Order: sequence, then structure tokens, then C-alpha cells
Amino acid sequence: MKDRTNHKIIDCTIRDGGLVNNWDFSVEFVQYLYKCLNEAGVDYMEIGYKNSPKLLKGSESAGPWRFLDDDFVRDVIQNKLATKLSALVDIGRVDENDILPREKSPLDLIRVACYIHEIDKALELVQLFHDRGYETTLNIMALSNVKEGQLDEAFEMISDSVVDVVYIVDSYGSLMPNDIHCLVTKFRKHLQKKRIGAHMHNNLQLGFANTLEAANHGVELLDCSVYGMGRAAGNCPTELLLAQLKNVKYSVGPVLDMIENYMIPLREKEEWGYIIPYMITGMLDEHPRSAMAFRRSAAKDKVLQFYNMLTVPDVKG
Amino acid sequence: MKDRTNHKIIDCTIRDGGLVNNWDFSVEFVQYLYKCLNEAGVDYMEIGYKNSPKLLKGSESAGPWRFLDDDFVRDVIQNKLATKLSALVDIGRVDENDILPREKSPLDLIRVACYIHEIDKALELVQLFHDRGYETTLNIMALSNVKEGQLDEAFEMISDSVVDVVYIVDSYGSLMPNDIHCLVTKFRKHLQKKRIGAHMHNNLQLGFANTLEAANHGVELLDCSVYGMGRAAGNCPTELLLAQLKNVKYSVGPVLDMIENYMIPLREKEEWGYIIPYMITGMLDEHPRSAMAFRRSAAKDKVLQFYNMLTVPDVKG
Repeated sequence: MKDRTNHKIIDCTIRDGGLVNNWDFSVEFVQYLYKCLNEAGVDYMEIGYKNSPKLLKGSESAGPWRFLDDDFVRDVIQNKLATKLSALVDIGRVDENDILPREKSPLDLIRVACYIHEIDKALELVQLFHDRGYETTLNIMALSNVKEGQLDEAFEMISDSVVDVVYIVDSYGSLMPNDIHCLVTKFRKHLQKKRIGAHMHNNLQLGFANTLEAANHGVELLDCSVYGMGRAAGNCPTELLLAQLKNVKYSVGPVLDMIENYMIPLREKEEWGYIIPYMITGMLDEHPRSAMAFRRSAAKDKVLQFYNMLTVPDVKG
Repeated sequence: MKDRTNHKIIDCTIRDGGLVNNWDFSVEFVQYLYKCLNEAGVDYMEIGYKNSPKLLKGSESAGPWRFLDDDFVRDVIQNKLATKLSALVDIGRVDENDILPREKSPLDLIRVACYIHEIDKALELVQLFHDRGYETTLNIMALSNVKEGQLDEAFEMISDSVVDVVYIVDSYGSLMPNDIHCLVTKFRKHLQKKRIGAHMHNNLQLGFANTLEAANHGVELLDCSVYGMGRAAGNCPTELLLAQLKNVKYSVGPVLDMIENYMIPLREKEEWGYIIPYMITGMLDEHPRSAMAFRRSAAKDKVLQFYNMLTVPDVKG
């Protein structure tokens, strides 16, 4: 296995896992996770979204990690340890006035998620966060559906920007390790001055394998979540990355502690992981929303019916 | 993705899955599986073990797929379709007198599982099955624990034998895609006249990824099981292989039918898959028997305790 000393692990359990349980994590849960991740040597914990509730209607019932408030975060994590804190924002959902200068905020890193056609708006936000002192990443979603020409144009804009890291995001969990290899090669060729990150989903049981493939080809920032918790099929599991990255700074024990005390009981109540409707949207390279709706229906285990709905013209209607 | 026209899929649901439920599959289950696998284009169905109950004491309670009887199999599969039938034998557990000439047997393929120090005995059995007209494979288990020198010696014996296919078996589910690439390269170099097979386990969520890696480097026979059913963490899922191998002869729908009607209800009663104690034996490159015992204990979800038992000298005791 290649040298892994430049790798950084970003645990997204609260942010991406919040998409499963509407961010209904207790303060104790988040504090225990922070302690465990720090002991395990994890580099960053993504503690939620820094979107504005004013700009995202209908989310009033969501837990506090959906709309992070700096004072609240400082109360929760009173003693910051080696593990840094990260937040994600979406285009059009962030209020500039909510973003304090970094020295007044508990956050270290702000990541901007965008689709390929939003790169210009995303880079404006990146510039703002950069100017206020934060580390920044640009997370390009749904790359499996992006055409070659669109990507070339994006590379030019990104090269000229201040962003620190550019992410390959396999939003639909549809990419194979070979696809990851091709994408990483392309990103490294066109973005020689940027670091690269990878955020993989587990629809085809390839979340970990694709993250390893990315790491083996020079991707430095590796996203994951404890016990794989994340929307639909979930993410690359943090415990697998910790166990396999050959780096003395990481240890898996503290994350097993978190799994034992919090994740196994939570998985009894909430659902994520390798579940056939998510496998089907992954193989069809589609957003999992149809599968999520199907899992909420009485027919949730009628997997052949779901497959036919998405693939047979007559059933599709 | 590479050309896949030479690939053959061997579904091991009954044989390897039997290790989960003591081969307690109904005749209807096995008949429905055979119908579905045939419609899906799967090349072989491994319908059980052809060991002798006289040579394996204490297994009297096992279902009939543990000790296949040719007349029984012929009764179950009265109309053989395109999907061929396979059985596995273990060294020292097979009675030569049970092996009919192929033209009198419903079986097409007999596979011999062995550890590296049993290759000579395994090749004697292979010769016997070959002489009676069967296709044969040699399945070398626990390759992650085999030393270079042992393997070189084995390659010589295998090259001189009549065996058709030699299998790379990741018994402990501990190998990474890079390891698979190295092993496949070595096997192909030293066994140029043999075809290669791969049987992977899912302890580290790499069953499918490792099978793909093997397939991409020229491995032709690919083992799997429906919904991943197999001992401990289970196998590469058949449905993922069918969905991703770019070959018009395969279709995933019939296997989704099997999952909907039989596998999802069965998974409610029996346990296999990505379960942390199996992940731990995989990362430690150990047989899963300690994890299987732990999962039967009251402490089954105390995953940190289990990890410490296997890794901390004081706890190991």
C-alpha cells in the first residue's frame, strides 16, 4: 500500500447521517463522537450544515446540526482537541451574515457542495469563506452524470480560484473503482495546484473500495462516516478506513467504542446501508430519492416491482 | 470495463449459505433459486457439499444439501436447464464410492477445497473426479496466510495436474484489491494453462470490489451468492455481479425476484453480512470462528470488548 502520510480523514457522520434522522442527534451523542474521533486520530469532524433556516423553508423540525449556530457549537465542543471541525453549505442556502471571521468561530473548514452548473456561484462562496480565514473545499456532486466538456470548463475556473481542495463526489453511488481511477487521473492532471478529496456512497458496496482506490492514486482528503451512516446506502465506513490506512496516527478502537455505544442502537431505529432499492438506483446511476420514497411505502421490500418501475417502459408509464 | 465474455458466474448460495443455517433450505427454496439463476443467466449453481456423513460426525442435524445424494438432487432438479450444477468437497470428508460417473449424476462440476499443505491430497481427488468425467476446480483456502515458497511448490504440482480451474479463496475476507491484483498476476504467470477463479468474502465490504478486481485482471470463474448469503460476513452478492458484468447474457431481475420472495424473509431469521466482529477478524486476517462464537454470546454487540480480546495482550490472557 502506498504512503499515506498526506491523507486526512473527514468524518461526516453528523452531517450526512443527519439526512437519515433529520439531524436528531443529542448533544451527548455529538460530544461522545467528537471524543472518539479525536482519540482515533481522525483529522476533521463535519458537525453539520451551515445553511440558514431562513433560506430553507420546511425544515423547522430538523435538529440543530442542520443549521449550525457558532455559539451553540462552541457550547457543545467546549474544549477543542486535535480534531478540527467542518461544516457544509449548499448554494443558495447560506446567509453571508452567519459566517463569522474564523478566529471567532469554532469551525475550521467550510465546504461548498454544488452541481457542475453552479461552479461559478460555489467559487464566489469559497472566496468569501477564504477571505474570512477558513480552509475551503469545493465538492462537485453527481460527477457520474457530468459530461467531459462541462468538466474542462470547470477545471479552468477552479484553477484560478483560491479553493484548497476539490472533491470528487459519487452522489449516486454508481461509480466503479475503474471510474474513480479515471476521474482522479483527470482531476490531478487539470488541477495540479489543488489537493483532491473523495466522497463515496455505498449503493454497490463500493464506498470503501472506491475510497481506497482514490487514496492509492493520490487523493488526500477521504470522507467517511461511522458505521457508514449516511443518506440511503450511506458512506465509506470510518472504521474500515482507520483499520486499513497504514498510518500510525490512526487507531480503530475508539470508533468501535462509538459503534458499540451509539451506532448499533441507532441502527435499530434508523435505516441506511446496503438495501436493494438503493442498490438499484446505484446501478441505474440515479438519485436515490425514488428508492427513499419506496422504502417509506408499504411495498418497501418488493424489490423486483421497484426495479420494474424504474426500467420497464410499461410499468414506468 | 474489460471484455467479460469468458466470465462464468458460480452462485454458492446453498453451499456457502448453508454454513449460516445448517443447510436448512426447503426443496421449494432450492427449486425457486435454480429457476431464478437460470433465468438470470448464471452459469453454475453450487447446490451443496458432496461430503459423506460417515466421515463427518456430529452433522446429523444438517439439511440434505450438506451431504448431497445424487438421486435426491435429481428429484429436486427434475429438468436441468442451462445452469449447470456444482458441489464442493473437503479433503478427508469424501467417500469415493459416492461419486457416480458423470453421465449418471446430475452434477457437472466438483470442486475440491483445501489448505496449501493439502494440495497433494486435493489433486488426487481432482484426478478421481476428472476420470469420472466431471469438470474440476481446486479451491486454495486461506491464501492470505500462505508463504511465497509454499505457493511456488503448489504451482508446480498444479501445473502437472488435470485440474481445469484454480481458485484464489480469500477465506478470512482480509485481502485488499491490491493484494488480489498481486495474487492474480502470480497465479496467471505460474499457471498459464489453467483458468483462474475467485471466491471472496465480505468482512471489509470488499467482496464485490475484489471480485471485480479479479475479473478485470483475467480471472474467469467468479463466485458469489444471492444477497451475499454466506458464513459470517458472507460473499460477493450475485445481484451486484449480474448488474455490473457487461455481458448481455446476464440479467439481474430474476435474482431480485429471489431476494424479494426468499432472501429478505430469510435474513430476518438468520444473520450474515457486514457485522463488526466479522470486520474485526477480517482486519486481523483471522478465521471468523471467534467472531461467530461471540455473536452467539450475550455480549454479541460489545464490539470494543471483542476487539480488545483479540488484540490487547492482557485481555487475550
